Amino acid sequence: MKAKVTITLKTGVLDPQGKAIEGALSSLDFAGVGNVRQGKYIELDIAETDAAKAEAQVTAMCEKLLANTVIENYHIELV
Amino acid sequence: MKAKVTITLKTGVLDPQGKAIEGALSSLDFAGVGNVRQGKYIELDIAETDAAKAEAQVTAMCEKLLANTVIENYHIELV
Repeated sequence: MKAKVTITLKTGVLDPQGKAIEGALSSLDFAGVGNVRQGKYIELDIAETDAAKAEAQVTAMCEKLLANTVIENYHIELV
Repeated sequence: MKAKVTITLKTGVLDPQGKAIEGALSSLDFAGVGNVRQGKYIELDIAETDAAKAEAQVTAMCEKLLANTVIENYHIELV
């Protein structure tokens, strides 16, 4: 199966990279853009074919390595 | 409206960051993981309320700033 993991900063955590993008967009004359937040996106293939087990495995990966759960949230989508 | 932009490397473009994650996962005893690719995820609010216009605006942002279209693909989702 393929897993798509989206990792985003929790609300309230400062995101200077997002602020930089917001500034760059506004200097390129894109008006009305706000609240830009940058996160990570990770795609991976896993051998596990059972959806529940696959989700448990990817959750463990997020908790242990992919996301810093103190400041980041993760969202897993299996396809 | 809120736009969610996912930016991924095109197939065939080397992804050393993905390879590093793959190596780290395998050293953490996650078996059967392969083809790890890392991309970017950007969330932003736009003032435009018409979906078609909003999509055109975000597409322009991707082409001009957010993605390097030589090596990256982007996917836009409006919510």
